[in-house]
Amino acid sequence: MSETIASRLAALGLELPDAAAPAANYVPFTIVGTTLYVSGQLPMQNGAVAVTGRLESESDIAKGQEAARLCAINILAQARAALGGDLEGIGRLAKIQGFVSSAPEFDKQHLVINGASDLLVDVLGERGVHARAAVGMASLPFNASVEIDAIFAIGGE
Amino acid sequence: MSETIASRLAALGLELPDAAAPAANYVPFTIVGTTLYVSGQLPMQNGAVAVTGRLESESDIAKGQEAARLCAINILAQARAALGGDLEGIGRLAKIQGFVSSAPEFDKQHLVINGASDLLVDVLGERGVHARAAVGMASLPFNASVEIDAIFAIGGE
Amino acid sequence: MSETIASRLAALGLELPDAAAPAANYVPFTIVGTTLYVSGQLPMQNGAVAVTGRLESESDIAKGQEAARLCAINILAQARAALGGDLEGIGRLAKIQGFVSSAPEFDKQHLVINGASDLLVDVLGERGVHARAAVGMASLPFNASVEIDAIFAIGGE
Repeated sequence: MSETIASRLAALGLELPDAAAPAANYVPFTIVGTTLYVSGQLPMQNGAVAVTGRLESESDIAKGQEAARLCAINILAQARAALGGDLEGIGRLAKIQGFVSSAPEFDKQHLVINGASDLLVDVLGERGVHARAAVGMASLPFNASVEIDAIFAIGGE
Repeated sequence: MSETIASRLAALGLELPDAAAPAANYVPFTIVGTTLYVSGQLPMQNGAVAVTGRLESESDIAKGQEAARLCAINILAQARAALGGDLEGIGRLAKIQGFVSSAPEFDKQHLVINGASDLLVDVLGERGVHARAAVGMASLPFNASVEIDAIFAIGGE
Repeated sequence: MSETIASRLAALGLELPDAAAPAANYVPFTIVGTTLYVSGQLPMQNGAVAVTGRLESESDIAKGQEAARLCAINILAQARAALGGDLEGIGRLAKIQGFVSSAPEFDKQHLVINGASDLLVDVLGERGVHARAAVGMASLPFNASVEIDAIFAIGGE
């Protein structure tokens, strides 16, 4: 009845990784007031960028969606770390930005970033419904296929 | 004397469209506290992306500005929907991000995004004066020439 | 003991320039509530964009870092102007976005943006530790190599 985020994660068979350390001289999240800013997350899995290369054609959409899904999982891992281990501290996900490494001909960034949007709503429920932008990049750090950042409201709004 | 946003729209001969549905699994805006996040808007007109193709040279600036203007109109339509139909609920426009589909040689993104900045100030008056970033993208969803998102403060600050 | 931002600037031998005027029809910063949005800053020096051209290979990293450092100096100049001349009004730097003009093969945007992250922490101390995204762009206004924007919390949080 009162479905928790943890129960949804379990039902999805999802185990969040430890929050990845930043790739450079910054922090993976900041909290100011009731706003949580999560740094751009790459499709990290087991400590390495798992999906690389820019997307060229429609046949790359599924690969991009898997990259976006991994970025979203890492966003949740960072949010959990920011909130002292308990994702229930999330008020709502306000916005994500989906940066998709793209050939000039590739224009399906919105479908790629659905890989993240779907996962976030699956895990966070109504609190995961978000605004977003999805755009095509010339390239990304570590040749990642996707990078996504996020803004959360924390606590009661 | 007390010029309203609606009166400015009328004076400009501008009629806002219905807020476009999002192109994918997300929402076109979220409100957290007094902050309104509007998702990236494409140059939609009559239900379709009206300006497509990346910008290559100075001769494409006018086309890009028209795309940016359409994005801004759609931002206003979303803001109006978010505010229950009344743009007077806007406290101020805080920031826009202008994503311009660009060939590597094209470096006039700031002039392109003026098409949006000018419209927003024309309609919102002092409340429309905003911070912004204008950048060049490898490509955009639906081969759109421009995508713009926005952050508004709502109500009295 | 009570190290001020001004004393750190002096120790670093850094003198902030006057805040640059925007390149187009917008403002270089907005303040809504306790949030300060700084517009995308280019690597301006002495009134001109000092570092241009997209980054192609590892040998361009140092050039990119210098561009990022100049962007950060201009962000601080804008923040100082926004805060009536006194950077001590900064609560903390919440987030930066680092846009790096990049060839498709260049994937070291995170190292480039360290040029800004390092400077910001050097000047602002603990208050300068930030979230960020670093991404590769097709091109940037005025053929700049880097553009960076920022969100600050001002005053006590």
